[in-house]
Amino acid sequence: MTDLIYEQPLNEKIRSYLRLENLAQQLQNNILQDQQHQCFYPLFSLAELVERCDYRTEVLKDIDRQIQQLTQISFQQESNSEHISQIIQQLKTLKVPLHNPQRIGSTIKQDRFITALRQRFNMTGAYCNFDLPQLHFWLGQSWQQRQQDIQFWLLQFQPLLAPIMLLLSLCRKSAEFNQIQAKAGFYQGDTPQALSLIRVKINADQHCYPTISGHKNRYAIHFVDFNLHRHTHSTIEFSLATCS
Amino acid sequence: MTDLIYEQPLNEKIRSYLRLENLAQQLQNNILQDQQHQCFYPLFSLAELVERCDYRTEVLKDIDRQIQQLTQISFQQESNSEHISQIIQQLKTLKVPLHNPQRIGSTIKQDRFITALRQRFNMTGAYCNFDLPQLHFWLGQSWQQRQQDIQFWLLQFQPLLAPIMLLLSLCRKSAEFNQIQAKAGFYQGDTPQALSLIRVKINADQHCYPTISGHKNRYAIHFVDFNLHRHTHSTIEFSLATCS
Repeated sequence: MTDLIYEQPLNEKIRSYLRLENLAQQLQNNILQDQQHQCFYPLFSLAELVERCDYRTEVLKDIDRQIQQLTQISFQQESNSEHISQIIQQLKTLKVPLHNPQRIGSTIKQDRFITALRQRFNMTGAYCNFDLPQLHFWLGQSWQQRQQDIQFWLLQFQPLLAPIMLLLSLCRKSAEFNQIQAKAGFYQGDTPQALSLIRVKINADQHCYPTISGHKNRYAIHFVDFNLHRHTHSTIEFSLATCS
Repeated sequence: MTDLIYEQPLNEKIRSYLRLENLAQQLQNNILQDQQHQCFYPLFSLAELVERCDYRTEVLKDIDRQIQQLTQISFQQESNSEHISQIIQQLKTLKVPLHNPQRIGSTIKQDRFITALRQRFNMTGAYCNFDLPQLHFWLGQSWQQRQQDIQFWLLQFQPLLAPIMLLLSLCRKSAEFNQIQAKAGFYQGDTPQALSLIRVKINADQHCYPTISGHKNRYAIHFVDFNLHRHTHSTIEFSLATCS
């Protein structure tokens, strides 16, 4: 078995970003592989999250903060300045579509086919062809046609998803993994600097997964045995990255 | 494009059977193709439907009714009697597991891994690895291992699903398709004999899907244009089977 990476957000903003990123990846998988009606689960969840909260202001603020930080760094590290100014340029470009007055995902909300499906998908097992004959018709179309549709739907969220994915990648790159031992399946740490994301890399052969809790300056990791469903008392070898 | 078959149940029993059959097929697809966490959607829906209603008594009654009907037919059609007695034998065999006092799906209900997942899956987008690290661990296992798990879960519902699938296949075979024209996109019919299932076969090139309504002696079919989202006024060529 291979190494698995578990991530724990330490604030609400990163929590939302990770959810949106995860849904975007799910939807992307549905463009790569034909998974029939299942593409609608991440699509509807994306639509719901984006309708519930307008993330644009937050993302714009975050982009500006990143640009400021990166500009400072590029003055200090002249050797790396070309790579950094490329990222700054990328961030600036990603700001433009966020200023578009049209609400993100509004095309999806107005789509009559999608709206009819959304109303039904929350009901248990309600995607039989008698519940949604239009879904059955859509699924009867060529995979190429459906791929284009899913691509178009995903594209509607791209103004939000593209900067979020870049911001998350910068956040992840802000710390490297260090090897650590969790004695009796437990590890805790604290730091004066505010953290936003904890990353735990662990080989699946140890047959346990971490449950992580914490806030910006303090975190605790418990390892749980997958088969026994309870805290393990073994010493666990893992790698830890604390990202700011 | 190819022919698509749309089905409309005309009573609650067939409606439930079709839902369960559809979910079983979805779960089966997840055994054939790795669709990651998506196997849990049909699994949870199956578990919910089976917990909500114990279908065993109904299915047992239905099996007995079928055996009785088939026995009569085999007296009338001697030429076909061997095939019919095979089906009768199949139906009798499928009755045995239905008499097991253990409630169907109870193993799933008691599974701690599945229970933890079920509680979260109703929340929008809540299957990130920080929501469900145990799911992330499970997804990190080999496809072969996960396939075995899904197969085991599906097997728990087999005592119910196997007879339902046979009963539905007998119902579908009770009528053949006849070519029909729906003038101005509308067709209605009635019959003195009680019907349980309407089946409409239509070539997707006509770019419309049927919405079917009705009860045991009467039914109406409206054809809807997929792109225009409204009733079509064209003459539609389709095939119809009215199953009892």
